Amino acid sequence: MAGLSIFGIQGLPEIEPGTDLAAAIYAAANETGTPLASGDVLVITSKIVSKAENRIVMLEDVQVSPFARQYGERWEKDPAIVELVLQESKRVVRQVGPIFITETRHGFICANAGIDQSSSGGHGRALLLPVDPDASCARIRTSLKERGLDVAVIMSDTFGRPWREAQTDIAIGIAGMQPVTSYIGQVDPHGHEFRVQALCTADEIAGAAELVKGNLSRVPAAVVRGLTWERDETGTMQSIIRDSERDVFR
Amino acid sequence: MAGLSIFGIQGLPEIEPGTDLAAAIYAAANETGTPLASGDVLVITSKIVSKAENRIVMLEDVQVSPFARQYGERWEKDPAIVELVLQESKRVVRQVGPIFITETRHGFICANAGIDQSSSGGHGRALLLPVDPDASCARIRTSLKERGLDVAVIMSDTFGRPWREAQTDIAIGIAGMQPVTSYIGQVDPHGHEFRVQALCTADEIAGAAELVKGNLSRVPAAVVRGLTWERDETGTMQSIIRDSERDVFR
Repeated sequence: MAGLSIFGIQGLPEIEPGTDLAAAIYAAANETGTPLASGDVLVITSKIVSKAENRIVMLEDVQVSPFARQYGERWEKDPAIVELVLQESKRVVRQVGPIFITETRHGFICANAGIDQSSSGGHGRALLLPVDPDASCARIRTSLKERGLDVAVIMSDTFGRPWREAQTDIAIGIAGMQPVTSYIGQVDPHGHEFRVQALCTADEIAGAAELVKGNLSRVPAAVVRGLTWERDETGTMQSIIRDSERDVFR
Repeated sequence: MAGLSIFGIQGLPEIEPGTDLAAAIYAAANETGTPLASGDVLVITSKIVSKAENRIVMLEDVQVSPFARQYGERWEKDPAIVELVLQESKRVVRQVGPIFITETRHGFICANAGIDQSSSGGHGRALLLPVDPDASCARIRTSLKERGLDVAVIMSDTFGRPWREAQTDIAIGIAGMQPVTSYIGQVDPHGHEFRVQALCTADEIAGAAELVKGNLSRVPAAVVRGLTWERDETGTMQSIIRDSERDVFR
């Protein structure tokens, strides 16, 4: 593969409910002298999608169940947040003290169902993950196509992982390409089958984009340019969500 | 942060036991017109370090324990590989059918202790992970410094993860920088503390480098250029290995 360049899209306005993200990203990229080009992979932080799709909840409006109240008070977590985590989840994977790891409705396993109180417009509000991140990415891809740009779109979020400290950005939505590059059946120069059979390119792209977006800077979108990717409108993140039958850690 | 460029180092020779990796990488980068520069992060695949450090084992020389023989035969795994996995491990984390996930002596949790039969010079041989990946990275960093280059060095390997299909490249060794970027105590524009407290930059860099190295192509080293990183000779991967006390998945 050839070299890549990765850069953040500067100059995005504060995203509000109803903001046309594709239009805002397209305009900002042009105005700051780094226009998008066909073949780019656009990586957007889930936060701005959640804001644009009005996934904002006022905590005072949340009906808190007795369990959420008890658990929240016991571990000094906002009971309204605990309630939202349960509402956004299919299943609790681990609940150890204040650590609350669930499987979201999408099938992602993360702390607090990916709910974010930071950058959500101040205290007393929470940002939920988009309802259907793949569909959100597809809408942005389609809208950019209407502007003449054939761009793959990946939505990223920042997740922890077992066994290793600190978090990384990974993909939670995709459009225009498959999230996985498969090496199954391919052999190395010695005719030996690869130990590595499939790489989650989408997660590697999301992490790479974080290196330029940062979590502090106000750069919620980045471009990965120079990657060879196969157009595929059937790509979704569902293909990398492991069945619990195949998962030895659930 | 400014933009990044990421490119593979072409033209590396086949690495043999005793190969001076820093010299080989320095020469190949110069000869192929992409010389290293101070400020770069050099990402090297563990495989070539294992080869250079002669971590090659002839399977016929392995003394196989009765357990390894029985388990290997039961699940159609080479008993010599099973034995090597046990020898390279502190602890078995999960053993479910043919899935054999252990904690290596370094503290990494992965399948088969990171032992690789592919690209190890053909059948009947296995490649073990380097004994001390941080030290291997430090030697390469020092050797490049002697050539006037102040380059951070990250060793990558390809690991699976719970809950998600496919693998990603992550860091298993580092020199010259800390693997984690901390946001602890920092607040967002609304004065709200960040949900994200620390990012494992080293893992994101390793994954980004995989996008240009690929697993099939013979490009075992890549450069990430344009990243702002703080020189720190005390950085090791040990700081991201989570204590089992803090780990709810062990």
